[in-house]
Amino acid sequence: MNILIVLAHPERQSFNGGLADVAAATLQEQGHEVLLDDLYGEGFDPVERPDFYPRRDADYFAPLTEQRRHYEQEALPEDIQREIRRLEWADLLILQFPLWWHAQPAILKGWFDRVLVYGGLYSGQRRYDRGHFRGKRAICSVTAASPEQAFMPYGRAGNMVEWLWPVHSSLYYVGYDVLPPQVTYGVQGGGIRYQDESVFLDHLEQAKSDWGARLAGLDGESAIPFTGWDDWDEQGMLRQQHPQRWRL
Amino acid sequence: MNILIVLAHPERQSFNGGLADVAAATLQEQGHEVLLDDLYGEGFDPVERPDFYPRRDADYFAPLTEQRRHYEQEALPEDIQREIRRLEWADLLILQFPLWWHAQPAILKGWFDRVLVYGGLYSGQRRYDRGHFRGKRAICSVTAASPEQAFMPYGRAGNMVEWLWPVHSSLYYVGYDVLPPQVTYGVQGGGIRYQDESVFLDHLEQAKSDWGARLAGLDGESAIPFTGWDDWDEQGMLRQQHPQRWRL
Repeated sequence: MNILIVLAHPERQSFNGGLADVAAATLQEQGHEVLLDDLYGEGFDPVERPDFYPRRDADYFAPLTEQRRHYEQEALPEDIQREIRRLEWADLLILQFPLWWHAQPAILKGWFDRVLVYGGLYSGQRRYDRGHFRGKRAICSVTAASPEQAFMPYGRAGNMVEWLWPVHSSLYYVGYDVLPPQVTYGVQGGGIRYQDESVFLDHLEQAKSDWGARLAGLDGESAIPFTGWDDWDEQGMLRQQHPQRWRL
Repeated sequence: MNILIVLAHPERQSFNGGLADVAAATLQEQGHEVLLDDLYGEGFDPVERPDFYPRRDADYFAPLTEQRRHYEQEALPEDIQREIRRLEWADLLILQFPLWWHAQPAILKGWFDRVLVYGGLYSGQRRYDRGHFRGKRAICSVTAASPEQAFMPYGRAGNMVEWLWPVHSSLYYVGYDVLPPQVTYGVQGGGIRYQDESVFLDHLEQAKSDWGARLAGLDGESAIPFTGWDDWDEQGMLRQQHPQRWRL
C-alpha cells in the first residue's frame, strides 16, 4: 500500500510529531510505502484566496469556479497540484492533528478548503459513495488535552464523535471509507509543555504502542457507516421508507 | 450596544459581504456602534506558529504556554492584540461566513486558534458559564450552497446543527450566550458565480430582508442551552442525578 500521513502541528518534537513518526515506522516495517506530509514544515498556506492565474473572472472571485477551471487546465497553484498528486498516489490517508477549538487546526482546515478542488476531486454527482476516492481509506489520529472522562456524553469537553463529525463527513464526501479515529486523551504536549519530561515520554510511549499495534491490524477494520445516494430522494432528503436507516 | 461583525469571505462583493453590510446598516440605524472586521481585507494570518518574541521556550513551541506568557506581558502579536481589543469592546459578536467543508473557512478557524488565547480569554477554571465573555452574546450568520431540504436529518448535506456545533461550543467555551444561527441556504454565490445576476440579487435581497428583520428584534431571543459547571462532577462527567438534563 501507499500511505500518506498529513501532520498538522507547529512543533515537530510534539506528541503529534511522535505519533506521525511511529505510524511511518510501523507501516514501513510492514513493507508499505509511506510519505509524511508535514504541513507546517512545508509552509502550507491554508487560506483560499484569489491566487489563481489567469483568473476565469478577474472582477469577482468565486472559489469553486476558479478551482474547476484551473483543475481542468492543469493550472492550479503548484502546492495544490502537489497535494493532489499525493492523494491520488495514496491508498490510505492518515490525518494526524491536535483538537484545537473542537476541530482541526486552521492549517489543516484550509488543506480541505484548497486541496479538495471542485470539478476535480468532487462534483455535484461525484460525491459520497460515488466519490472520487472510493475504495481508499482514511483515518484521523487526534490528540486532546482533556482526560477521556470529560469527553463522555454531555461531559465538560463535549463528545469526540461530534467534534470529528465534520472532518469525517468531509473525508466521506470525497469518497473515502473512514475508519474510526485513534484518539489520545490527556495530552498537554500540544499546548502546555509537560513540566516533567519523563511524564511526557511515558505517555507518548504508551500512545505510540497503542497506535502502532492498531496500525498493524488495520486491514480487518470496518468503516464508519454513512448515509448514501440510495438513502436520499431527488431533493436530498432521507427516503422515509428506507428499511436500513433510522426513521425521523 | 457595541457590535463586532467578523466577516470571512475572500470576495467582498459576495453574498456573505452583502449580509455583513445589511447587518451593519440595520444595527447602525438602531443607534448601535458597529465595527466590521473583514478578515480577508485585513490579511489576517490564521496559522498559529512560533511568532512569539521573545519565546518563553526557544527549543520547543508549546502554543498555549507562549499565549499565556505573552498575554500576561502584553506582548502578543499586534494583530492578536487588536482582535482581543475588539472582542473586549463588543457586547454582541456576529460571525458571517460560508460553510466550507462542514465548518468555517480556515481564515476564521485560525481566528479561534490564535485570538482566543489561553491564560487571557480562558483558563481551566474560567470557561463555559464561568467564561471570560459571560453576559455577552454571539451569533453565526452562515451561507450554505445546498438547498434547505438536503440539510434535514440524515439528508444529503448533513445536519446544520451538527456542522455548527463545534463553532457554537467554542463561543460558549469563552462564555458567550450563543443565539440560534441565521442560515441562508441555496447560496451558490460563495462558490460558483451565479449565471444570472438578477437571481443572485433577488436571493440576496430576500436574505438581507430576513436577516435585517431578525436583527431588529434580537433583544428578545433566547440563547442555545449548553451543559455547565453545575452539571459536571470533578472528572468533568455529567452528574447522573442532575434533574434538569437528559440522562445517558
